[in-house]
Amino acid sequence: MHFTSEQRLDDGVLERAFTLGEIPGILWTPASASASAPAPLILLGHPPLGLHKMYSRLAERARHATADGFAAATIELPGSGDRPRWAAADQARADLRRAMAAGEPVGDGIVDALVLPLVERAVPEWQAALDALLVLPEVGGPVGYSGGVISIGTRLAVVEPRISAAVLFAGSLVPRAMFEEARRVTIPLHVLLQWDDEGNDRQAALDLFDAFGSREKTLHANMGGHTGVPQFAGDAAARFFTRHLK
Amino acid sequence: MHFTSEQRLDDGVLERAFTLGEIPGILWTPASASASAPAPLILLGHPPLGLHKMYSRLAERARHATADGFAAATIELPGSGDRPRWAAADQARADLRRAMAAGEPVGDGIVDALVLPLVERAVPEWQAALDALLVLPEVGGPVGYSGGVISIGTRLAVVEPRISAAVLFAGSLVPRAMFEEARRVTIPLHVLLQWDDEGNDRQAALDLFDAFGSREKTLHANMGGHTGVPQFAGDAAARFFTRHLK
Repeated sequence: MHFTSEQRLDDGVLERAFTLGEIPGILWTPASASASAPAPLILLGHPPLGLHKMYSRLAERARHATADGFAAATIELPGSGDRPRWAAADQARADLRRAMAAGEPVGDGIVDALVLPLVERAVPEWQAALDALLVLPEVGGPVGYSGGVISIGTRLAVVEPRISAAVLFAGSLVPRAMFEEARRVTIPLHVLLQWDDEGNDRQAALDLFDAFGSREKTLHANMGGHTGVPQFAGDAAARFFTRHLK
Repeated sequence: MHFTSEQRLDDGVLERAFTLGEIPGILWTPASASASAPAPLILLGHPPLGLHKMYSRLAERARHATADGFAAATIELPGSGDRPRWAAADQARADLRRAMAAGEPVGDGIVDALVLPLVERAVPEWQAALDALLVLPEVGGPVGYSGGVISIGTRLAVVEPRISAAVLFAGSLVPRAMFEEARRVTIPLHVLLQWDDEGNDRQAALDLFDAFGSREKTLHANMGGHTGVPQFAGDAAARFFTRHLK
């Protein structure tokens, strides 16, 4: 892990860009974080649109997390941003766009092709990022995962014991195989659902929530579209992390 | 409205029993409430089991409300507690118990007979209670309604303009007619759903949430049965009232 740039933000938060092998990432640490008082970490998931495009929303979420005393970190997804294109993923996205433009139902084949290889590649990368981040003296456990592609969050919750709690965003297509995987999740979950999300299947989101094996799981459904999560819903997710990671 | 007894609780909260005509009720006011600083009011709804039986849960909710600076009040429902029995309601409850014991589906006829007359009778009584309570110098607006029979809360939200926000508990049978009524609700709503509520139809609860006309409505679904609302879910409902009534 190599830091490639750093800047101190207004509120004393240190924002550092890094690379982990070929993978770019960003780490935010609160002014209070130190070797004697390491900040618990929240991994910021995001959709595969590229870190540049997602930067302002990620920085806003990081600001919220650091204000609550957390470190926050994110990495670029495979095939996104400046990372090498990935022909199969591009093909799957093109198929999805074509189906949606034609008003056709999005078949299982398209969803599987779009999501499952992304999960397979991304999850070990997030775990490698965790290895590197937790070595830093100013960053500590426990670790939370927040947002992004819900299938990545689900797989991480199953395979990565260092993740103690997750805020998941029910806003992406879910392969059928993930419903079985969801039953194996046991960590506390806080699931956000935008009730009127245009590109999302509400019933599938409710079915996935039902499938999660966690004894503590909460669904917060709010009005509005995909990017319209109300401020108070973000605040509630932050309180969930404070309750479980501190 | 006549106060029939009063006691000062440990935290300075004043608990007063009252009668409003033949209807018994209880009012809790925080130590801070006065004519120059009237406390906004939360009406505490409850199921038709009688105030005596519900007292400890109501007192707990009142303690939460008064700690946040609210006054809280409740009244006995028609046909419950020490109020005159009501043959038609008793019959409807017996029909419900018989259907449930036999494992039969609870038909629309039973639900309508059980809930609609209760709504018709109870809502004007809660409005009369509001008239009497808001005359007290230490009690002020805005007013919230919380919990209890969701059809009573829905009707109150439609017909009573003094109610500014409501926390509804998706935990009772809902007549079909109430789904249409729900579309006319416009105040901010915070709906609690116990995902594994034995006596409740989850899909009907989700359909009712969908039907509410409010631009701001939030569904908080949590694990556990009817009476298992977790502490953090109660806290979130309290924050909803603080956000809207203060």
